[in-house]
Amino acid sequence: MTASADQEARQQRIEELLTAEVVASFARTPDPRLKQLLESLTRHLHAFIRDVRLTEEEWTRAIEFLTAAGHITDDRRQEFILLSDVLGASMQTIAVNNEVHLDATEATVFGPFFVEQSPLVGNGGDIAAGAPGTPCWVEGTVRDTGGNPVGGARIEVWEADEDGFYDVQYTDDRVSGRGHLFSEPDGTFAFWGVTPTPYPIPHDGPVGALLDAAHRSPMRAAHLHFMVSADNYRTLVTHVFVEGDPQLEIGDSVFGVKESLVKRFTGQPAGAPTPDGRALGDKPWARARFDIVLALRSA
Amino acid sequence: MTASADQEARQQRIEELLTAEVVASFARTPDPRLKQLLESLTRHLHAFIRDVRLTEEEWTRAIEFLTAAGHITDDRRQEFILLSDVLGASMQTIAVNNEVHLDATEATVFGPFFVEQSPLVGNGGDIAAGAPGTPCWVEGTVRDTGGNPVGGARIEVWEADEDGFYDVQYTDDRVSGRGHLFSEPDGTFAFWGVTPTPYPIPHDGPVGALLDAAHRSPMRAAHLHFMVSADNYRTLVTHVFVEGDPQLEIGDSVFGVKESLVKRFTGQPAGAPTPDGRALGDKPWARARFDIVLALRSA
Ligand SMILES: [Fe+2]
Ligand SMILES: [Fe+2]
Repeated sequence: MTASADQEARQQRIEELLTAEVVASFARTPDPRLKQLLESLTRHLHAFIRDVRLTEEEWTRAIEFLTAAGHITDDRRQEFILLSDVLGASMQTIAVNNEVHLDATEATVFGPFFVEQSPLVGNGGDIAAGAPGTPCWVEGTVRDTGGNPVGGARIEVWEADEDGFYDVQYTDDRVSGRGHLFSEPDGTFAFWGVTPTPYPIPHDGPVGALLDAAHRSPMRAAHLHFMVSADNYRTLVTHVFVEGDPQLEIGDSVFGVKESLVKRFTGQPAGAPTPDGRALGDKPWARARFDIVLALRSA
Repeated sequence: MTASADQEARQQRIEELLTAEVVASFARTPDPRLKQLLESLTRHLHAFIRDVRLTEEEWTRAIEFLTAAGHITDDRRQEFILLSDVLGASMQTIAVNNEVHLDATEATVFGPFFVEQSPLVGNGGDIAAGAPGTPCWVEGTVRDTGGNPVGGARIEVWEADEDGFYDVQYTDDRVSGRGHLFSEPDGTFAFWGVTPTPYPIPHDGPVGALLDAAHRSPMRAAHLHFMVSADNYRTLVTHVFVEGDPQLEIGDSVFGVKESLVKRFTGQPAGAPTPDGRALGDKPWARARFDIVLALRSA
């Protein structure tokens, strides 16, 4: 062995022993799942540091990045979710958790803008609640993977307005562009919202700086968020995307698009009769259909 | 291929394609090093999620953990450094950066308690500045890997008091247990401090809860921090550990111990003459020697 090969072997051993020492420190973790998570996290984190030969200055930058992300995060802003989203970690987590549900409607990212206790609207009600945008009638059916209707499913929907902002991004405490309803006994549901448009994820913080440094766009493909839950069924968190949205080609900043979730939003001229007789005056509107298939919760 | 094997292959392909899509999103990053870091981070992060089959609930817990770490972090408390430390990421970063410096004094963790602009003390001066503890005379020489003395090296030292606290952990703005001095032209240096004792890393936050859940102790082996810098030399960040400290056997919570850094601290009875004639009254004291070898900065 040459001196240099010897030194290399010695160095490799130092690094491997350190990883082993840290993994061993978790040996007494009582919860076996937590033990597994911490051991695997240690192995992958150390492998990353060794692979890239992370410099001490880069380590410092990483600490500063996480600190800045922590400090911008509050009740209305969640920079760590944005970070997970733009690294595709959120979508990968969703992917590994949906492996046994391939016949059900596909899931996608939750995003940072869901709010508990949204307004209840009746079936056919208006969740826009004054959010600026083109009125949009969304209807569909909730079924199980056997094709049976699921009545009483709780359907939470939330969306940005046509200016690209969720209600919680305004400072006036408005509640708009969000609500929940329940499917009818035959599984059907319908509501008024606004036609989704592309919007940027919040990009004035460290995650925005990261996207910028990577010459990546913060824009998301236009979408409407759904969370559908019913007894005995696996809760579905998903989006509907808009067929023809150019952002689908350019790319979605959080990797949330799945072909099966892209639906046609059909534009209607002003004055065209609405499904529920709602008078929209001289406003054009749109309609879309989203049929939902829920998977049974695993035993 | 059976239906189940087919489904498994399909699932694997979905997960691999997602990772590839995220890696590809960094293709236009102008800085090649940043590109490499982000691509590798993505690969390792996704591999972790896939290996452990991270649940959505666990993902949420991770987001909450990072949020809590961000919120407890301020000018005096750095929870992300603590996290990096207890996962051995800090030591692994140090390990990969010191591979070409095997003849020099070994490096160890920086820790969260360094403060810029510490008091300057003359050679032989007192950095304890009232910190409670057994007075300790520390002396040594700064040399290069060729054995030549390095004069004018800036030697920063900082340490916890015998109650286990750094000055910045008190709320009274005291400055004690820290200072800097410069080596003499012949490389020698000496100062008074206090004999290091084991202390816990701050463990009232999320990192403390993690250690608790893993049945790991927050205690660090007793140590005195050094940061030594000189023109043309690689800055050395290290500790001196105390021979015979029982915590060396039990384990150091941040994996910072290296055999070569463990030194004898020799106890001296009250009244034993001090090296510089300092009168300590009826207090026993100790002395230790730490010879430092700096590596040349790589070209
Ligand atoms: Fe959204
Ligand atoms: Fe320390």
